[in-house]
Amino acid sequence: MIAEILSVGTELLMGQIANTDAQFLSRRLAELGIMLYRHTTVGDNPARVKEALGEALSRSDIVITTGGLGPTEDDLTKEMVAERFGLRMVLDEPSLHAIEAFMNRVGHPMAENNRKQAWFPEGATIFPNACGTAPGCVVEQDGKAVAVLPGPPHELQDMFERQLAPWLARRSGAHIESRFLRIFGIGESNVENQLRDLFHSDNPTLALYCGPGEVQARITAQAADREAALAMIEPVAEEIRDRLGDHVYGEGADNSIEQAVLSLLKARGETVSFAESCTGGLLAARLVGVPGASDALGEAHVTYCDAAKARVLGVKPETLERYTAVSEPCAREMAEGARRISGADWAVSTTGYAGPDGGADGTPVGTVFIAVAGPDGTTAEECHFRGSRAFVRTVAASWALNALRLRMEARA
Amino acid sequence: MIAEILSVGTELLMGQIANTDAQFLSRRLAELGIMLYRHTTVGDNPARVKEALGEALSRSDIVITTGGLGPTEDDLTKEMVAERFGLRMVLDEPSLHAIEAFMNRVGHPMAENNRKQAWFPEGATIFPNACGTAPGCVVEQDGKAVAVLPGPPHELQDMFERQLAPWLARRSGAHIESRFLRIFGIGESNVENQLRDLFHSDNPTLALYCGPGEVQARITAQAADREAALAMIEPVAEEIRDRLGDHVYGEGADNSIEQAVLSLLKARGETVSFAESCTGGLLAARLVGVPGASDALGEAHVTYCDAAKARVLGVKPETLERYTAVSEPCAREMAEGARRISGADWAVSTTGYAGPDGGADGTPVGTVFIAVAGPDGTTAEECHFRGSRAFVRTVAASWALNALRLRMEARA
Repeated sequence: MIAEILSVGTELLMGQIANTDAQFLSRRLAELGIMLYRHTTVGDNPARVKEALGEALSRSDIVITTGGLGPTEDDLTKEMVAERFGLRMVLDEPSLHAIEAFMNRVGHPMAENNRKQAWFPEGATIFPNACGTAPGCVVEQDGKAVAVLPGPPHELQDMFERQLAPWLARRSGAHIESRFLRIFGIGESNVENQLRDLFHSDNPTLALYCGPGEVQARITAQAADREAALAMIEPVAEEIRDRLGDHVYGEGADNSIEQAVLSLLKARGETVSFAESCTGGLLAARLVGVPGASDALGEAHVTYCDAAKARVLGVKPETLERYTAVSEPCAREMAEGARRISGADWAVSTTGYAGPDGGADGTPVGTVFIAVAGPDGTTAEECHFRGSRAFVRTVAASWALNALRLRMEARA
Repeated sequence: MIAEILSVGTELLMGQIANTDAQFLSRRLAELGIMLYRHTTVGDNPARVKEALGEALSRSDIVITTGGLGPTEDDLTKEMVAERFGLRMVLDEPSLHAIEAFMNRVGHPMAENNRKQAWFPEGATIFPNACGTAPGCVVEQDGKAVAVLPGPPHELQDMFERQLAPWLARRSGAHIESRFLRIFGIGESNVENQLRDLFHSDNPTLALYCGPGEVQARITAQAADREAALAMIEPVAEEIRDRLGDHVYGEGADNSIEQAVLSLLKARGETVSFAESCTGGLLAARLVGVPGASDALGEAHVTYCDAAKARVLGVKPETLERYTAVSEPCAREMAEGARRISGADWAVSTTGYAGPDGGADGTPVGTVFIAVAGPDGTTAEECHFRGSRAFVRTVAASWALNALRLRMEARA
């Protein structure tokens, strides 16, 4: 099956937003094995929407449109699809009731122009919108189809996963499932090398996505039903876990390393504190970013200057003088001090040169010492990160959180 | 002048990256008053690049391509432009030397296939690449032009600003300059209302961009030379500063509120400390994110539980009992405690309910108390933010940094 994406929205042509809808759809279509040769973006202009729609249909089996489903007069994607296929627009009563119910739920009165969102090309299969007022639809004629999705990314993504992906799967007689494995502490090319043979499979497929210092592996399978698809994914997931060992820290598209750390702490009824120099509050900020962090974090300290390391955390002046603040002995004393003053079960420290300037003989910019103090002693490691100040600090914070995870798992 | 954007790259069709190049170009073209009716994206496929290029040229005066300038065989944008216009490819010696010099600078040997990047359609105006190996170019024929830019965003943006924007300006016989005003503490619609009449001008133009809790105003003028353009911008900038008063915290596209705060602190030789509850390290992390923060920040404390607020910062148990931790008295004592223990000139505190759960009678989720303790006393305010946990924390941190800025400016 060959698809094209047609994005409708003057805000895209003005550069007010990036076309993340096209990126999302492209990634998901690739995972579903659907060919995609072109994206087109046009503004909220009826003639140009209709022209681009006709061109896209001439080259593909299905055109997926995004945007232009709002309540205003500008929004006319459905109308242009109807014109292109020579169909009347008809009112869908269930959609009208759903829009009314949605507006009541969010506490806004139903506006007269919202009624427009309940009209569709005759014969369309309607996709309810779980996150907003604009339903989508798919219209078919002569072996060609147009799927009409809303523009707001969370509405689009929800509708794609719940409605269009299953529709595409039914069309191909298959059910599609995915599982995400979250990987830390090993580079993308290294992951790729270790999993090389697994990329050759067409079903299930394996794809890697990268964040700063992190890799996600997505395994996607097509089968006759959900159970069969999940059963196909299971051995691949197991194989990846076997090969990558404790580099796999969790599963799920939204599962961050700080969420994994907080889950472990809560499951064990344990607490943590932080003593941060170069990360300067990022460790605490990331853990506090997860709802429920107060169960596991009571306090944390940013000790950026040497005097604060000594006064707040009790780092010995001799240590600072002999080894400097960017050293393993200092990192150890910082973590032990933070654990002592907070009474927490665990404490994690960071001290390093984040750049762009700084660094010392034998300790270049990007060097970060990370220590973890816990019930079973203190461990420390020296890391070297390459990149901007923001990159070094972000990856150092992730590395420190992961070091805590590994210590907790080793003690479990 | 009517333009179209043609993005070339299979990674875009696979959804590996979002098309931020198209967004950047769209925004800049809108600012330059150039019409843009369509974006098209195709993969690294010669036939489809050539087809899309021909279609785009038939609809526009200039087509701006992005991507496909790399050293590999896949990269063929320039070749397709040459074919479309019936031009030979010729070697540009200065480009070859520049590529060699760039490779030497970054410590990689010049690879044979990098030579390919120095070949251009005959007669092209070449755009040197200050950030990478791939030069761009512009090719003209029969009143139509194709501008060929590299795909990596920082290379594209640098080349656009240095080369293509001036080329477009020369073509229209004008010079274009912009100035950014950074605005905080006032919503976008409020800014829009206060500046409503200023949006009616075609030259200089005024545009607003929004971040979380922040607004940027960009003033862009076209004139015969730089001085004339800047002179046209000046009265608009002054008018905006007059109307918005101290909501304008600085200028420059990259000037964040934390940079403004750090500049003020450094200029005055003063220091700051933080006492964070709901922001949980974000204040410190943002200030430490600015190079040179060590001049102004020695330490900061995340006191997330009540016991830490009392023990670390000296918040009185009676205050916590009578008013709870989410209260103005607690915020004041936190800031005063952080100032006392650190010896800093200033200290800023935050305490609130970030959500998604929590809140208390009369103190709903989104309530944040912010206090600033300084040489001239302590001030506090009660804020109410609406949004996700991440949004409430981010905006609360910005609000607290801005409160410090206002206190410092008031004392200047």
